[in-house]
Amino acid sequence: MKTDIEIAQNADIKKITEIAEKIGLTEDDIELYGKYKCKINLDVLKKNKSGKKGKLVLVTAINPTAAGEGKSTVTIGLADAMWKEGKKAVIALREPSLGPVFGIKGGAAGGGYAQVVPMEDINLHFTGDMHAITSTNNLLAAAIDNHIHQGNTLGIDSRRIIFKRVIDMNDRALRHIVVGLGGKANGFVREDGFMITVASEIMAILCLSTSLQDLKERMGNILVAYNYEGKPVYAKDLKVQGAMALLMKDAIKPNLVQTLEGTPAIIHGGPFANIAHGCNSILATKMAMELGEIAVTEAGFGADLGAEKFMNIKCRYGNLKPDCVVIVATVRALKNHGGVEKADLNKENIEAVSKGIVNLEKQIENIKKFNVPVVVAINKFVSDTDAEIKVVKDFCDKMGVKAALSEGWEKGGEGGRELAREVLSTMEEEKSEFKVLYDEKDSIKNKIETIAKEIYGADGVDYSIAALKQIKEIESFELDKLPICMAKTQYSLSDNPKLLARPNGFKITVQEVRVSNGAGFIVVLTGNVMTMPGLPKVPAANNMDILESGEIVGLF
Amino acid sequence: MKTDIEIAQNADIKKITEIAEKIGLTEDDIELYGKYKCKINLDVLKKNKSGKKGKLVLVTAINPTAAGEGKSTVTIGLADAMWKEGKKAVIALREPSLGPVFGIKGGAAGGGYAQVVPMEDINLHFTGDMHAITSTNNLLAAAIDNHIHQGNTLGIDSRRIIFKRVIDMNDRALRHIVVGLGGKANGFVREDGFMITVASEIMAILCLSTSLQDLKERMGNILVAYNYEGKPVYAKDLKVQGAMALLMKDAIKPNLVQTLEGTPAIIHGGPFANIAHGCNSILATKMAMELGEIAVTEAGFGADLGAEKFMNIKCRYGNLKPDCVVIVATVRALKNHGGVEKADLNKENIEAVSKGIVNLEKQIENIKKFNVPVVVAINKFVSDTDAEIKVVKDFCDKMGVKAALSEGWEKGGEGGRELAREVLSTMEEEKSEFKVLYDEKDSIKNKIETIAKEIYGADGVDYSIAALKQIKEIESFELDKLPICMAKTQYSLSDNPKLLARPNGFKITVQEVRVSNGAGFIVVLTGNVMTMPGLPKVPAANNMDILESGEIVGLF
Repeated sequence: MKTDIEIAQNADIKKITEIAEKIGLTEDDIELYGKYKCKINLDVLKKNKSGKKGKLVLVTAINPTAAGEGKSTVTIGLADAMWKEGKKAVIALREPSLGPVFGIKGGAAGGGYAQVVPMEDINLHFTGDMHAITSTNNLLAAAIDNHIHQGNTLGIDSRRIIFKRVIDMNDRALRHIVVGLGGKANGFVREDGFMITVASEIMAILCLSTSLQDLKERMGNILVAYNYEGKPVYAKDLKVQGAMALLMKDAIKPNLVQTLEGTPAIIHGGPFANIAHGCNSILATKMAMELGEIAVTEAGFGADLGAEKFMNIKCRYGNLKPDCVVIVATVRALKNHGGVEKADLNKENIEAVSKGIVNLEKQIENIKKFNVPVVVAINKFVSDTDAEIKVVKDFCDKMGVKAALSEGWEKGGEGGRELAREVLSTMEEEKSEFKVLYDEKDSIKNKIETIAKEIYGADGVDYSIAALKQIKEIESFELDKLPICMAKTQYSLSDNPKLLARPNGFKITVQEVRVSNGAGFIVVLTGNVMTMPGLPKVPAANNMDILESGEIVGLF
Repeated sequence: MKTDIEIAQNADIKKITEIAEKIGLTEDDIELYGKYKCKINLDVLKKNKSGKKGKLVLVTAINPTAAGEGKSTVTIGLADAMWKEGKKAVIALREPSLGPVFGIKGGAAGGGYAQVVPMEDINLHFTGDMHAITSTNNLLAAAIDNHIHQGNTLGIDSRRIIFKRVIDMNDRALRHIVVGLGGKANGFVREDGFMITVASEIMAILCLSTSLQDLKERMGNILVAYNYEGKPVYAKDLKVQGAMALLMKDAIKPNLVQTLEGTPAIIHGGPFANIAHGCNSILATKMAMELGEIAVTEAGFGADLGAEKFMNIKCRYGNLKPDCVVIVATVRALKNHGGVEKADLNKENIEAVSKGIVNLEKQIENIKKFNVPVVVAINKFVSDTDAEIKVVKDFCDKMGVKAALSEGWEKGGEGGRELAREVLSTMEEEKSEFKVLYDEKDSIKNKIETIAKEIYGADGVDYSIAALKQIKEIESFELDKLPICMAKTQYSLSDNPKLLARPNGFKITVQEVRVSNGAGFIVVLTGNVMTMPGLPKVPAANNMDILESGEIVGLF
């Protein structure tokens, strides 16, 4: 079997101008970044005179397990298959972060024969969006410390600075640091820490903005610190939101690349799926709907986190209405939910599939609460037996939901045709009556409880003393009328990663509540969230190289 | 008078493909970054079958003063003028750093009618080279701390880590920090600090490399720390130089933009002119010589630092031979050297010009030591009187050196024609017999003393006890056979910024000696060097904005 980078480097990659042309983009609509990548000018969104938009398909998944679900390969394979079924499909995906590429992952652009290319560029600097976010974030951070150093007329309490610096690298040594040492010329000493770039609120803002002016305004609204009176200090108080917007002037434009089969793929933005909402930009999704008959997009983690936030946050702000949701499941993951250890997943175990399938059941029920049609994609692995697959298909049949095999990793678009046909027929037969789950004007606690009970199946919500205090504070500043962004383990419907399948009789415990006022959501943490990864004992970087011939090795 | 950004945004900017075509570059030779910027593939350097290269003109200056010399505007105006004289000229310049743009400077891409465009891009993210350097630098930094955290088999002494993290932002709070706080999971606590990206050794290496493989090897040779036995630890010991080269695969390609008049300008690399050598990349200069009949390039600070390093470091490694050196002087700066305060520079003062001109005299003498023909460019300001200019011209005449007015800032290429003609006739009449000033195999002390006596006019060199110890250490590791990179004040020929004009009877004091083993030079510090600027009370960023129309304000 070839590695991903081998498949990608041997691909018959087309010039991006050719791909752009396929979806009606002219030379003036794009900005080239080399021969195989471009940015799409935002003016394109205003060009549609008839007002006709493509349909929107969201790919999500059951709760992920160590077995892997392959959401991106299903997304890519599905879109490739749509073209084979005569439909112009355009993909909208998140862009990978550079830092983790050098850690364990080595890359993130699909896999096998369902990849986006040029994968070596997408996984490295791409078109510079991450770097633009890093610079923008760090300009604001430098402005905060500089303001204090230069006299602190805003009275910023250096013990209560929320906004952190970021770097796009897995660097544990920067998690917790002390800055401003070395004397008067270097400012005031204080505790601080770096996050990885994708955890920056600027990234979340980029993904929820609908224009550069909207982006600028949201960046100005970032709550960066409290003053000595305990009142919020916003980014706009430091007067750098104009310079920040200037730094983001190109990053706001969605990027166009292609799949191995030449399907247009818009890759733009990639916020964390815990402290942020985990979806590509609204602008990328809108662009995909503008340029394609079908826009295929995905959301991070499982449906309880990714799809919920997609619906309640992204669709709310983007005024989007999904037409169909694809829930990806694998027989291996269902067996894992059914109690089978990772080492035993290759053995047929029909009972475990039947037992674990309740996780899929709950995710289907959840999507139906948003009034959107559902199709299940069974992402096939070689170890799956026909009898195991039959269990899943029969179960979906009983629930009145279509299910189809997806074999994009092995076969590319050809492996996604059954799924594509089921998605198309579902959208013909069932109409989406999409609605969000709660009113953002409701109280913070009510909103949290709605998600916990309706989506997770919890009996209720407990709050730490700190969280209760934080909720009160947010309410007192009238910053509470925002949707909720849950930060919870992705492995369970509950907040305990060990409770697989479909747990019940549990409560969610809220440890901390923060407001991302620029992005426009309230982050609710049910545990510690790691915002700066570290490198492993043998980093993936150690195996990477570029040879004299230009051949790249070690990206996978 | 229009501001620089107004002039730049109203320019009749041509598509970069058109500029590329003017110098024989085909679509396959370049990688577009939008419509007005591209990178040039390194293969182009191998295409020249005849082996004919353009002539190389270096623009340098007298010791800079608060009055400003305008080296970049002379360089740009000269190249623009060359085209008017029927010569295909190509510029090679340094690329500006993003951080300082938000501080005091606001931008750095020439000025007035002698600018390179698109200046808003060149001053911001450009083609991402700075970001690539930042990532590459910080991957190595993270690998060092990770190595220690994961067991430290190399025995790195965490008290003696030399290699620092970098960020492209003016951020004084990061000058001196403590990292690794917060417990075992975050690594070992140690003192550290960030430099600004342009101070990274990776930047110096990029500018001295002749291929991607050379770059990789040099990066592997960076001395990053000492182990517990006091022996050097190199980057290659951490096995990340392959991944680092991968991150630099596009950054190594020179960038092509244009002047306001459509002259091709290759802008690539911009190392510090104190702890590094302060010149654009060897590859950019070679490319300019490959593609033009005349390559016009510049070096940082005055000729005692910039030109000296250009000759002794860059030309040595790049096997380059300058055909002519232009020394930029202004009447205002000469008056300043002659003892006039900044506030009085607008008043005619012939005596002060005559008194300060000895600075120019020494710089001319210095260039002649390299056996390269010299032309003096008098960069004209409105306050200059004819009588003052006559003093400079008469003086040059007496020294047997041609002098010409340069009025690029006000008149673009038309203002550089006199200078262009003098440069062309000088190259016709005088042949460069270029030689470096010292043998790099000589001892460190001899090399330093050669520069101090021959170039600065010092009586000798004093060494701090620390410096003597460092020299011994470098010799004991056999890392001493490298050219010298002096870090000295740019304002004086001596190491005392207050000694203007042509001081004598002074000695240079060496405070510290370091080895940049990857870049391939020994850094000799005669005082403290600031490697991380701070933001001023009202940062330039506060006035920057991008309006709904797309108009950019506040970059100048």
